[in-house]
Amino acid sequence: MEIKVYKKEDTYSYSLGAFPTLELLNKHTKDVIDIYVHSSFNNKEVKEKILAKLGRNFKTNDKLIEKLSPKENCYIVGIFRKYQDILDKNENHLLLDNPSNMGNLGTIIRSSLGFGIKNIAIIKPGVDYFDPKTIRASMGSIFNINIQYFSSIDEYKNQFKDHTIYAFMLKATNTLQTFKFKKGFSTLAFGNEATGLSDSYLDNNSIIIKHSNEIDSLNITNAVSIALYEFNRQNN
Amino acid sequence: MEIKVYKKEDTYSYSLGAFPTLELLNKHTKDVIDIYVHSSFNNKEVKEKILAKLGRNFKTNDKLIEKLSPKENCYIVGIFRKYQDILDKNENHLLLDNPSNMGNLGTIIRSSLGFGIKNIAIIKPGVDYFDPKTIRASMGSIFNINIQYFSSIDEYKNQFKDHTIYAFMLKATNTLQTFKFKKGFSTLAFGNEATGLSDSYLDNNSIIIKHSNEIDSLNITNAVSIALYEFNRQNN
Repeated sequence: MEIKVYKKEDTYSYSLGAFPTLELLNKHTKDVIDIYVHSSFNNKEVKEKILAKLGRNFKTNDKLIEKLSPKENCYIVGIFRKYQDILDKNENHLLLDNPSNMGNLGTIIRSSLGFGIKNIAIIKPGVDYFDPKTIRASMGSIFNINIQYFSSIDEYKNQFKDHTIYAFMLKATNTLQTFKFKKGFSTLAFGNEATGLSDSYLDNNSIIIKHSNEIDSLNITNAVSIALYEFNRQNN
Repeated sequence: MEIKVYKKEDTYSYSLGAFPTLELLNKHTKDVIDIYVHSSFNNKEVKEKILAKLGRNFKTNDKLIEKLSPKENCYIVGIFRKYQDILDKNENHLLLDNPSNMGNLGTIIRSSLGFGIKNIAIIKPGVDYFDPKTIRASMGSIFNINIQYFSSIDEYKNQFKDHTIYAFMLKATNTLQTFKFKKGFSTLAFGNEATGLSDSYLDNNSIIIKHSNEIDSLNITNAVSIALYEFNRQNN
């Protein structure tokens, strides 16, 4: 198997760096194809952890590591088969309608795990969450999260009829600062970085994070993390 | 005056793009040296706004615009004299101890303005907030904010003795989710992206944003925006 720089249609992807690769090994052991460790890497503890989890020796191929991570000081790469997650019906969800930036998506995945939401729906189109840029920005938290694509919001709604969707949008009349989330399963929904959620999401449960009119909008990763924080605050 | 690609020691900097440049013109009219508009830019409304604020004609120099913004589709550049802000003693503050990433700093400035905190202290060292990358990431909100450097946290404390400093750090025992900010002037303080705040900040007012132990820490811009949100929520 020749490992090339990632393309969306590949059946495998890879994690760059020690920390994300250890997360991969911990959570998706059976999907790991190979681990590559740079010949100059000499952290014995990390090497031993890799050996223990992998159950066989890692590989050394400095040229491959440099090819896959051209801009970064990266010493460990984990190659894995892309896998399919299914969202858990009995948990709260985050929903992203057509996210377009891989770095933002990774950062959002990390915040979501940080506030205990481990199921993320992506409405197509939307960036490829298996891209190494997203994995890197998530700092490996992607391996602890279920992510599933849906063709449309209707497909999602049909599968999760018990979930109340809270659509975060500038046109909403409810203000997060005073809003009370209902009991029961919840889905926090956010739109594309540039265009937000379409008007079809607007209903009695839509929410705006009130901010001064001196800015147009909050940065998307900040908005999502604020919503996750507030939801977490009310549920603890 | 020959305009070159920005260096920290320059006495001028520039805003890239229509929106940040209009913010510059609105808030710092007298600091504007020149406005350059690309010959292919034909938004009449924006051009008229520029003329009205500038009180004289803008310049056209496509090569200069392309030199200053090599990677971006940028049609408007505002050149301005760097100015000196002084923090307002009678307002709440945000304090950043040695921020190291210019994009993060810009995003934080935007969130801060969004939640009504218009005075930001930077403890040195710390990136140059007049760098065009910071201005761009702030989407021009930097021109609505007072920012001031301090050599040390002690220098800051000596000048703002009435401000209670709330240091956000992982070692804190107060949890933001249940914390009540006191009445009176407040300073929300955050550390460097990689190292956080030093132990010298730890006291009875230190706060942690509680998150699951499945992540190491929150992204710094997300952490700051959550703190700003919660502070805003309690003060409205």
